[in-house]
Amino acid sequence: QKTLKIAVVPGDGIGVEVTPFGVQCLQAIGEIYNIPLQFEEFDFASVPYYKKHGDMLPKDWKTTLSQFDAIYFGAVGMPDEVPDEVTLWGSLLKFRREFDQYVNLRPCRLIKGVKSPLADRKPGDIDFWIVRENTEGEYSSIGGKIFEGTDREIVMQETVMTRFGVDRILKYAFDLAQSRPRKRLTSATKSNGISTTMPWWDARVREMAKNYPDINVDKYHIDILTAHFVQKPDIFDVVVGSNLFGDILSDLGPACTGTIGIAPSANINPEGKFPSLFEPVHGSAPDIAGKGVANPVGMIWAGQMLLQHFGHTEAAEALLRAIENVLGRSQPDVLTADMGGKGSTQSLGEAIINEV
Amino acid sequence: QKTLKIAVVPGDGIGVEVTPFGVQCLQAIGEIYNIPLQFEEFDFASVPYYKKHGDMLPKDWKTTLSQFDAIYFGAVGMPDEVPDEVTLWGSLLKFRREFDQYVNLRPCRLIKGVKSPLADRKPGDIDFWIVRENTEGEYSSIGGKIFEGTDREIVMQETVMTRFGVDRILKYAFDLAQSRPRKRLTSATKSNGISTTMPWWDARVREMAKNYPDINVDKYHIDILTAHFVQKPDIFDVVVGSNLFGDILSDLGPACTGTIGIAPSANINPEGKFPSLFEPVHGSAPDIAGKGVANPVGMIWAGQMLLQHFGHTEAAEALLRAIENVLGRSQPDVLTADMGGKGSTQSLGEAIINEV
Ligand SMILES: CC(C)[C@H](C(=O)O)[C@@H](O)C(=O)O
Ligand SMILES: CC(C)[C@H](C(=O)O)[C@@H](O)C(=O)O
Repeated sequence: QKTLKIAVVPGDGIGVEVTPFGVQCLQAIGEIYNIPLQFEEFDFASVPYYKKHGDMLPKDWKTTLSQFDAIYFGAVGMPDEVPDEVTLWGSLLKFRREFDQYVNLRPCRLIKGVKSPLADRKPGDIDFWIVRENTEGEYSSIGGKIFEGTDREIVMQETVMTRFGVDRILKYAFDLAQSRPRKRLTSATKSNGISTTMPWWDARVREMAKNYPDINVDKYHIDILTAHFVQKPDIFDVVVGSNLFGDILSDLGPACTGTIGIAPSANINPEGKFPSLFEPVHGSAPDIAGKGVANPVGMIWAGQMLLQHFGHTEAAEALLRAIENVLGRSQPDVLTADMGGKGSTQSLGEAIINEV
Repeated sequence: QKTLKIAVVPGDGIGVEVTPFGVQCLQAIGEIYNIPLQFEEFDFASVPYYKKHGDMLPKDWKTTLSQFDAIYFGAVGMPDEVPDEVTLWGSLLKFRREFDQYVNLRPCRLIKGVKSPLADRKPGDIDFWIVRENTEGEYSSIGGKIFEGTDREIVMQETVMTRFGVDRILKYAFDLAQSRPRKRLTSATKSNGISTTMPWWDARVREMAKNYPDINVDKYHIDILTAHFVQKPDIFDVVVGSNLFGDILSDLGPACTGTIGIAPSANINPEGKFPSLFEPVHGSAPDIAGKGVANPVGMIWAGQMLLQHFGHTEAAEALLRAIENVLGRSQPDVLTADMGGKGSTQSLGEAIINEV
């Protein structure tokens, strides 16, 4: 068996708190299922590193991380100390772009024991995937200012979409939809208001759909789509969106299924040319950092996606079952505050490790 | 008393169906409160008009509509016949920009008789305003394609923010927050990912906040903000956002309070140099058009905002009470399907007119 080499990057805030539990879960699962895992931890991609070195990453970060199969990432940023755009574009967003992790895949599932803020929704009612374009679109690095500091000041930022970039994410999403029983794909658009990029996005969806005659395709403008997430989340199967729309939907979706504290995210380079990155959907959450109350499930579930990604299906399923079992028991002493419990990162993290 | 001249533009789809009930409500209220109202109806800004004339509007539309105090607008678009970007940029978005209706104001209130999809929320729990920038930002008309039709195709669209445009919408939002008991303002941002325009937006918010030391200001990235709309909508008072973010939030907010079918929207030129436009938040809804089942409340409530805007506070309050009374009675025969009833546009529209 080939050893999976994993670079562990805890980052900042609650990233640092949840990472150890994620790593321990992976180690436990690895032992049981005989998966050789090798971890190496790095202190870069964090505010303390930035303060010391004046940069988020060492010069040779790309060579260093390229030697790994995967990056297991906590969360980054301390906006009161360093602006978010500096920390994020200096680390996470750089990884996504430079390692061409063009698929951001996020499950949205209502699972037992997790209370949804929506009325009358039961476990199983909500079960879909969000496929987010992860390298271009609205997250562009092109933009600037003119007449800065004056009343005439104008600030511009370019949204950039390429046929190459859009077609490959659509293909990934259609393939995923085809692997699912309902075979339904929903495209997030805003072609009525954003008049150049989005009508073109719609055209690319129509074009790709021709290759998948068995897929049921629909599209909604992002505004009404967010409304449908709240009002009829059961209709979705695979939802595909641009970088920004995917970002929004993948916070809203998990919020509808209970808490974004349990949501995982895989930033995938499907060709395996570069390492893929696995992280919780939540951020570094400075407001609760240092208190030991952060929900470790997003991080642990991200580890589950890592196993799945590398074909360790049995181990991945066991880990998902362990998460579901622990949450399903709804023990207030175990669950964290975001789930209505009074437990800690440790109580919940250890419960899952023991369950494994 | 000065006569209020109102241009009625029903548009397409359910716009045409709900408009008459809105007009009748205004007429009834006008009679009771002695407000001289004068209506004139126009058939432009609709797909049939487009098909006949090859354009959404007559050449002299600006002169024609400038003679009115307000535009009372239904909804526009029939995407199966003419692409949305053509109909919208040819009418509604043109009005907003050319009449400098830079404030888009939308209430978000959980009212009695309207069932929220959120668990455990009561009437009164949710009550805030969304203030949306309505002329620039992500809805720009600058963009284009290169290498069209080839594998190298690139499509770009510019987001344009001006100090002039951003400062005036922020000022409006801060002023509104100051008039409210909780004095809280939330800014929608995405400065961690959208690295030129949004950090600058944040800086403008900080700058404007200096003039309002008594306002409690916070900001959330748009992704987590949509999550908060679902998980803790009670914390909001006034939410301000860019054109796109405001658009998204003002569909999501009404969805959280029950149905977007009741939500109104005022597109305001505060200086009164041009007519302001009042419309429901919903669109032309081709899927239910022609069936007589559309909810007329969004349109009627938009008329209420019109009265309020022109200082007819007593009449506006009476109309809002009439809406609340009818909805509060929760009569299945009266309410439309989106509210769980089996009534029609007519049953609900007439109930409100009678209540008035
Ligand atoms: C129809 C569409 C262009 C419009 C918008 O995006 O502004 C609508 O969604 C709205 O909110 O008024
Ligand atoms: C932290 C931020 C830049 C990031 C994003 O917008 O992509 C996050 O919200 C996410 O969803 O991974």
